[in-house]
Amino acid sequence: MSGDVESTRLLGSAPIPIVAPDGPLDRILDDIHARFGATTDGAVASYIPELAGADPSLFGLALTTMDGHGYTSGATSTAFTIQSVSKPFVYALALADRGVDEVTRRVGVEPSGDAFNAITLEPGTGRPLNPMINAGAIMASSLVDGASAAARFERIRAWLSAFAGRELDVDEKVFHSERLTGDRNRAIAYLMRNAGALTGDVDEICSTYFRQCAVNVTCEDLSVMAATLAHGGVNPVTHRRVLAEELVSRVLTVMTTCGMYDNAGMWMLRVGIPAKSGVAGGICAVLPGQLGIGSFSPPLDAAGNSVRGVLACKELSERFGLHLLRAPGLPAHPVRSTYRSDAFSSKRVRSLRERLALAEHGAEIIIHELQGELEFASAERLARTVRSNLDGVRWVVLDLRRVGRIDETAMPLLIGLVDELTGRRVTTIFADPNGLAGTNRLLRDGWNTQRVRDTETALEWAEEALLNARDMQTLSPSVRVPLGVQELLAEVSREQGARLRALTQTRLYAKGDIVFKEGDPADALYFVTRGLVSVDTRTAGGRRRFRLSTVPAGSAFGELALVDGGARSSRIVAVEPTECQVLTVSIFEKLRQQDPSLCDALFRAIARSLSARLRQATQEIQSLEA
Amino acid sequence: MSGDVESTRLLGSAPIPIVAPDGPLDRILDDIHARFGATTDGAVASYIPELAGADPSLFGLALTTMDGHGYTSGATSTAFTIQSVSKPFVYALALADRGVDEVTRRVGVEPSGDAFNAITLEPGTGRPLNPMINAGAIMASSLVDGASAAARFERIRAWLSAFAGRELDVDEKVFHSERLTGDRNRAIAYLMRNAGALTGDVDEICSTYFRQCAVNVTCEDLSVMAATLAHGGVNPVTHRRVLAEELVSRVLTVMTTCGMYDNAGMWMLRVGIPAKSGVAGGICAVLPGQLGIGSFSPPLDAAGNSVRGVLACKELSERFGLHLLRAPGLPAHPVRSTYRSDAFSSKRVRSLRERLALAEHGAEIIIHELQGELEFASAERLARTVRSNLDGVRWVVLDLRRVGRIDETAMPLLIGLVDELTGRRVTTIFADPNGLAGTNRLLRDGWNTQRVRDTETALEWAEEALLNARDMQTLSPSVRVPLGVQELLAEVSREQGARLRALTQTRLYAKGDIVFKEGDPADALYFVTRGLVSVDTRTAGGRRRFRLSTVPAGSAFGELALVDGGARSSRIVAVEPTECQVLTVSIFEKLRQQDPSLCDALFRAIARSLSARLRQATQEIQSLEA
Repeated sequence: MSGDVESTRLLGSAPIPIVAPDGPLDRILDDIHARFGATTDGAVASYIPELAGADPSLFGLALTTMDGHGYTSGATSTAFTIQSVSKPFVYALALADRGVDEVTRRVGVEPSGDAFNAITLEPGTGRPLNPMINAGAIMASSLVDGASAAARFERIRAWLSAFAGRELDVDEKVFHSERLTGDRNRAIAYLMRNAGALTGDVDEICSTYFRQCAVNVTCEDLSVMAATLAHGGVNPVTHRRVLAEELVSRVLTVMTTCGMYDNAGMWMLRVGIPAKSGVAGGICAVLPGQLGIGSFSPPLDAAGNSVRGVLACKELSERFGLHLLRAPGLPAHPVRSTYRSDAFSSKRVRSLRERLALAEHGAEIIIHELQGELEFASAERLARTVRSNLDGVRWVVLDLRRVGRIDETAMPLLIGLVDELTGRRVTTIFADPNGLAGTNRLLRDGWNTQRVRDTETALEWAEEALLNARDMQTLSPSVRVPLGVQELLAEVSREQGARLRALTQTRLYAKGDIVFKEGDPADALYFVTRGLVSVDTRTAGGRRRFRLSTVPAGSAFGELALVDGGARSSRIVAVEPTECQVLTVSIFEKLRQQDPSLCDALFRAIARSLSARLRQATQEIQSLEA
Repeated sequence: MSGDVESTRLLGSAPIPIVAPDGPLDRILDDIHARFGATTDGAVASYIPELAGADPSLFGLALTTMDGHGYTSGATSTAFTIQSVSKPFVYALALADRGVDEVTRRVGVEPSGDAFNAITLEPGTGRPLNPMINAGAIMASSLVDGASAAARFERIRAWLSAFAGRELDVDEKVFHSERLTGDRNRAIAYLMRNAGALTGDVDEICSTYFRQCAVNVTCEDLSVMAATLAHGGVNPVTHRRVLAEELVSRVLTVMTTCGMYDNAGMWMLRVGIPAKSGVAGGICAVLPGQLGIGSFSPPLDAAGNSVRGVLACKELSERFGLHLLRAPGLPAHPVRSTYRSDAFSSKRVRSLRERLALAEHGAEIIIHELQGELEFASAERLARTVRSNLDGVRWVVLDLRRVGRIDETAMPLLIGLVDELTGRRVTTIFADPNGLAGTNRLLRDGWNTQRVRDTETALEWAEEALLNARDMQTLSPSVRVPLGVQELLAEVSREQGARLRALTQTRLYAKGDIVFKEGDPADALYFVTRGLVSVDTRTAGGRRRFRLSTVPAGSAFGELALVDGGARSSRIVAVEPTECQVLTVSIFEKLRQQDPSLCDALFRAIARSLSARLRQATQEIQSLEA
């Protein structure tokens, strides 16, 4: 570690998180740096006098992650000129300014197998073969918008700066040196203009191109520029979008096929990461979705690539298996478990008649618990699993709680699946607690698609629909269930019941009212005599609420108050206008003296109810642990 | 759908799952097939007389998934000759037979930008530029092992057959036609031999090469061959390994940079899937880890690629976003939540003294709940998160239950992290219920790394270690805790306790004994008077057991028996030699008549205990739902 972690990023809006030095990746990077720093192979570029003076011992390695964290080793803040590393970025700017079609008419995308300074043009059109050789790069640079050469260059400088996340400047000495010795590039430009391919003032165009090559960067800049491409065009340090996402893959493709001069094929074989090198010794390598790599060391090999940079990139690729075409591990099956509602029901408190109906017809509701990321291949497998489990099914619950992301590549198949289910009159219910981007696009008009917050609500929704379809509509919220027929009081005599009723108070709640919430004192037992309440609580991190159960008229809640007091551990909300008969703890304590047998019966009933809930909770944990 | 799903795969050991036709992917494939079937662009190859007779209207599309499922549309079982599609596969065979170094000395890997029949060789060496042009393919074919030309060809035929998953044969007419008109290839071979690059009998070598090009395949075969490369070298239909995993990326790399003749760059730009085409109209495209694509349609474009095949592959790539360099979505943070043990403890029943110690020092135990797949980038972020949360930490629990896979690319950083923690004398405990491949490689000698089956065991292990370190060793399993000081009997008088003791029986269990299991009748309450038992149950799918809690001497289990009878919902196993005092339900029912106040006290205590367990279960669900 050379202490370069805290660099000065002028455009940086988010601080780079500081971690104690020497984590595992720091150590590996230092190890690679030490290992190849000793190499004396290669020679500093000499075709431009100013470059020939570079210190051949300089060597820097920098990595930038997708959350903008930087790892550095060696000379990572030494400035050098960007040279050909500018080519993919300026090609990107030309694409952004002129559109893909025009740029592709003017510059090809075929690997040439030629050296960087080849004069080969496409026979007939005079079109340069690709934007990574000088001819194509000069063409791309000429296609950048700008009223004047100065304006065009300023656009290029600002563009490169946005990738780097700080304002870059020009090494004027290198620029002048380059301009004085740039006759071969002038010749290429004139040949292109002669062929009718290039338009404009050749001297101005070449001058802009030379200035572009003379922009100063550091090895760390290159890693941030690479990370911006890896991050889909958004700079992960400044969080600014620099390049449209749809252009990123085009830029990475030309880097893949033509980025490393006439060693592009060998580079792809051995390193397998889209990259571009420059004659000042820079390499910028892009691992999509994962990492940006910057390297700097002046001595070059015969193909013009930095010797130490190539060795370090190859070592990084091999040590971590970063080759783009490495045989990937196969993901887990997207459906982690499938069950039907006859075997697993919602936690809504139900009558015996309803329970029997659900046991008999519950197989019409199928629940698929999904996992992992949904992309093309996993969506295909998911669609196949859902489609092969449709026998007798009328409601499909897709439990998305363990799905991290729905990738765009999954959408066509998921849309096709939902449309097919809708066509078969099967209802699809998405339990989507994470609010995934993409789920909304799967919703159709009408009732055949539903998006709810959690699995419990999805199950309950499907059960209600099933009971409705069987003419087993659940208790209307307007029906009153007197204390005498409450489940908890089943073992209580008529006289005891009447005595109890005299001790309770009636409380009324409007829809949406909170009866009590977590932390409130547990000071009363509530019998629901009309309406419906939900029991919910926050997840461990407190990020969101999820429903534990619903309690309809005829059942009770808050019974723990009579047992161990303390504070409430969940929240009760009236789902419908609700009436409760409330027995407070203070009145209950008096009752214990006066009527111990009534209290005994109540305790036994509460213990039974707790026991049932505990079994259900254990089942819930079983399902979550599965 | 042309009804080709049930193809005859002679080598196939696993049946292809049959699904009702016309799923979303079937429909999209049919749609693409219909859309481009009407195109009349392109011309059937005519340089070999036998090919010129092909029906230009033929068009087939086939996909094979990573679990060997096939999708087909159109002419997917029509035989045609493989031609140049054989090149990457025979190159793979040469690599397998001769090793990477020798093959690379004999055939380059640089894209040439030349047509397939180019005569260009590397100046000086006479080495062909890459194995996808005819020169390189003839060289690769000549490098295949075999005592004779016939033996070498049979190796090639068997090799291609293993990729296809069925025995392939040769179209003798095409072979003879090809041999009669193959002078340009003979010329190339003689030039290579002249340069000292090719060794052997040119006529034999060319003849083997012509036979290789004349092997008959179907479009479906090509999709299975592609899927075998996509699947890391294992045929997903026959499940046989054909190619070593480390050679797969080399083959895909040359397909990427040189696969589509002189349109390789444009193909990568527009389609972005490694592929190879042949002049008979076949295309074989490989989407690593996801899909194999086969296409067949004879009319070719100017570069020699199947017109309909290119259009269909481009459409598939665009519709599903399959471009290899598409900006990938960014994965979720690998650490879904982090908490310390002062806020969340194991479910082991603890004394007040122990609970206070854990509340005071529990922050020394940190739990990271991980999620997703661990690969290079997520392992980097995980290491950073763990390292920035080490303040005062002595035990790190990595909860792997939501981790689907530890990729090889994650290993160097995970190993580095564990080594660093071990060096800092921090213990790492892996809770690994899925038994992930890779976890074992993270274990070190000694007690500084631990692998346990679930989070509960991990937490308990860390807590025990913490209490030990604080000289708060938990109760030795040999200490006897009489009934009089049992938690459940705290409110029972000395006389009542003595009466109860007289009604219980003593039962002894050896370590590992099962006290009862799920489904057993709940017929007794057990007071643990010596030893330790664990409570466990099966996950919903029944795939594995997980621990719910442990119960030490001084506590009771099985109390639901007195409340609601029925069957046991969990299993109790003696973790240490254990002694219990057992109160059966039948004796308890007698006691209810004789001593109602004793029973009342017992019920209240049970209700309190149930209530505490229910709160804990709710907390557990909260954490699992988070």
